[in-house]
Amino acid sequence: MHPAELFRHDSDGVELAKGETLFHEGDRGDSMYVLLEGSADVRVGETLVESATSGALIGEMALVDSSPRTATVVATEPCRLAKIDQRRFHFLVQQTPYFATHVMKVLTERLRHMNLLTKTSSVA
Amino acid sequence: MHPAELFRHDSDGVELAKGETLFHEGDRGDSMYVLLEGSADVRVGETLVESATSGALIGEMALVDSSPRTATVVATEPCRLAKIDQRRFHFLVQQTPYFATHVMKVLTERLRHMNLLTKTSSVA
Repeated sequence: MHPAELFRHDSDGVELAKGETLFHEGDRGDSMYVLLEGSADVRVGETLVESATSGALIGEMALVDSSPRTATVVATEPCRLAKIDQRRFHFLVQQTPYFATHVMKVLTERLRHMNLLTKTSSVA
Repeated sequence: MHPAELFRHDSDGVELAKGETLFHEGDRGDSMYVLLEGSADVRVGETLVESATSGALIGEMALVDSSPRTATVVATEPCRLAKIDQRRFHFLVQQTPYFATHVMKVLTERLRHMNLLTKTSSVA
């Protein structure tokens, strides 16, 4: 199942115009987002780490461990996002094991990507 | 709750002598482990990325996305570990939401650690 399917009928989502910022690196945040429509750039410092499209999870790290945002997210097209706060997150993890394993998969992919970047930069 | 508590009464765990290898980088693997007793070094190439102690999750990335091991794990003291295969993992995620959120926390910590390493190495 596509992750956006879980939230397709969300009525209190977030809408962003092209060029609008969802959050900045260093911000305090206690919610994550699922990108339902549109696209957004995820940057750590000046580095583009992800071009997020429909179904992407955004900002899940701050939600999982309550620490500041590690990236800045800017809409590159008009976006619609589902907002998931702590309470909803724990409800989803309990009621929808698919959601929990999907979050783990996304974190694991990012970790592999960072491991590769680290190896590449230490070789260079 | 300490993660090792969930598996304290495991009867079919894995035992390692000091110096013994749990798995090598590049190995195929479809299980993760929870370190119940002892300690182990986790190395990516020549780099020591973690000195694992009781409660540590080991090898969860290969279990989540079925790709080869990214690290080599060697016991630095006699170890006892609980082994969690795909079937048990999905059962745990469904029945023990605490376990699912703990795996996410560990992945998030590792990701933050790698982000920091990447920033440090690009500054150096």
